[in-house]
Amino acid sequence: MVQAKCWVMTKHFDGFPKTSDFELKEEELPEPKDGEVLLEAVFLSVDPYMRPFSRFRMKEGDVMIGTQVAKVIQSRNPAFPVGSHVVSNSGWRTHTVSDGTGLTPILPEWPKDVSLSLALGIIGMPGLTAVYGIEEVLGLQQGETLLVNAAAGAVGSVVGQIAKIKGCKVVGSAGTDAKVAYLREMGFDEVFNYKTVGSLEEALRKASPEGYDCFFENVGGSFSTVALQQMKNFGRIAVCGSISVYNDSTPQTGPYPHLTMILKQLKMEGFMQSRWEHKHPETLKRLLAWVKEGKLQYREHVTKGFENMPAAFMGMLQGENIGKAVVAV
Amino acid sequence: MVQAKCWVMTKHFDGFPKTSDFELKEEELPEPKDGEVLLEAVFLSVDPYMRPFSRFRMKEGDVMIGTQVAKVIQSRNPAFPVGSHVVSNSGWRTHTVSDGTGLTPILPEWPKDVSLSLALGIIGMPGLTAVYGIEEVLGLQQGETLLVNAAAGAVGSVVGQIAKIKGCKVVGSAGTDAKVAYLREMGFDEVFNYKTVGSLEEALRKASPEGYDCFFENVGGSFSTVALQQMKNFGRIAVCGSISVYNDSTPQTGPYPHLTMILKQLKMEGFMQSRWEHKHPETLKRLLAWVKEGKLQYREHVTKGFENMPAAFMGMLQGENIGKAVVAV
Repeated sequence: MVQAKCWVMTKHFDGFPKTSDFELKEEELPEPKDGEVLLEAVFLSVDPYMRPFSRFRMKEGDVMIGTQVAKVIQSRNPAFPVGSHVVSNSGWRTHTVSDGTGLTPILPEWPKDVSLSLALGIIGMPGLTAVYGIEEVLGLQQGETLLVNAAAGAVGSVVGQIAKIKGCKVVGSAGTDAKVAYLREMGFDEVFNYKTVGSLEEALRKASPEGYDCFFENVGGSFSTVALQQMKNFGRIAVCGSISVYNDSTPQTGPYPHLTMILKQLKMEGFMQSRWEHKHPETLKRLLAWVKEGKLQYREHVTKGFENMPAAFMGMLQGENIGKAVVAV
Repeated sequence: MVQAKCWVMTKHFDGFPKTSDFELKEEELPEPKDGEVLLEAVFLSVDPYMRPFSRFRMKEGDVMIGTQVAKVIQSRNPAFPVGSHVVSNSGWRTHTVSDGTGLTPILPEWPKDVSLSLALGIIGMPGLTAVYGIEEVLGLQQGETLLVNAAAGAVGSVVGQIAKIKGCKVVGSAGTDAKVAYLREMGFDEVFNYKTVGSLEEALRKASPEGYDCFFENVGGSFSTVALQQMKNFGRIAVCGSISVYNDSTPQTGPYPHLTMILKQLKMEGFMQSRWEHKHPETLKRLLAWVKEGKLQYREHVTKGFENMPAAFMGMLQGENIGKAVVAV
């Protein structure tokens, strides 16, 4: 018999999440039956999408959604031997009994000196999101200019680097000088702190006077309005995130984009990486290879202790992290 | 020597255009030189796009932009014999000297009993816009459900009919009961007057409870916000027009669309028919054939007299027309 801890969303977030919206609960898990395994969380992910999904895919009293890297500590399923690691959609739980559905084993070629936490980051969902946004949604071509915001985040930092691998000019926006310095280290061509530039419009124009072919959108809100005006004709926008509006109690409003979209013949598409799930194995191998070859750099923002999940989540929503935010149990 | 009349935009429109923003001028045209022709306007087009384009593509004192069907009344260019008709980008002018650049002869197979004014409408720019929006932007497939607003307008009325030809369910919105009756006549499956339905959201839901695969957007503004919520996952939106915001002095604002676009993985694309100019000859033939076969119905809203161009334009912007608004000289 195992005691599992889990974090429950006691009530729907109203505005920015508060500590009192979460409750740490304990539950007794049954012994794994035939075909089942018992998982123990090693690393847990906190991601921006959890905020809007809490509204649309959860009800009050549910365990918070999310993925984790977990170790198999009991197994009655030969596909998942004891001691092996998997990525699991278990939510914010320390222990989970699973029949194996939806578990993804860590790639067999995973190097010993690479932290398994990357399976939640650059070699996981955020890395996949970056690849599909660039390749499937934007169809980014060599020589084009790409804008990415929240560029030091888990997805943005991969987006910019992949665009560099593809021979593009990359302009990145982030919200602290430390993040901007990190973007420069990673080889972004033009970088700025959107909080201190004064005029975002001027910063975007200065970074690429001829405009932008592609825009990888992670922020939304007023940033989107300004950036739209700087797109080239036939520009493409991959709408991956919209973190600037996730915590609105009353929706923020801005000018309608339609007229600009017509005059410049812009294309804008919202997407989630799950659409290309059939490509995940190949794409994860590609990401791992790029990491091993040193073509993709990464940082992680690691919070220790399962008890700190809500704090890690709220900190990530406030932009405390450079690179991927994870919790180490 | 010919005296030409033309309508000049004396100052940029501020809000809804006013009579005083236009001035009727006369100018003396030179005799056509070798290779040139003298054109006399027969029908002139007034279109929604002229309102935003006046801001972005014109300066004060310019002749209003626009296309017309013109008769060749003098010719020193064998490609355009006297008595033949062309579509010309001459703007709001009674007479034009042209070297032939940009002139499109009326299709040789044009039937005698079909008004040449249709070359400004269903067998012209608005018809082309409908075809490309449906085929190139939306990729509308048989069995899908399409929403079109401003559905009794020059473009919308063609959009709905082509979607019916393609075996789709068509929902149309318009702003008078007479327009709604016309949509019903044309075979639209579900139609409503958005001004009297009370709740647009409920009207859209009732017309297609399972949502919309495609949305041909002519209106923008708050309509777009409500319609976005009714799209199916992977819905596509062709942004053709945005007439509800064209006359804003201060841009209208609405909730940002990004989060909905992500959760439903929606694609939205602005377009203009000129992008597929290389396909115009084939497409015009197709439109003419559909008209001849009775597969496409049409109405025109004809204003008589070149002196009434501004009134026709302003009336069209107020939605006075069913079908294409044209001016007969």
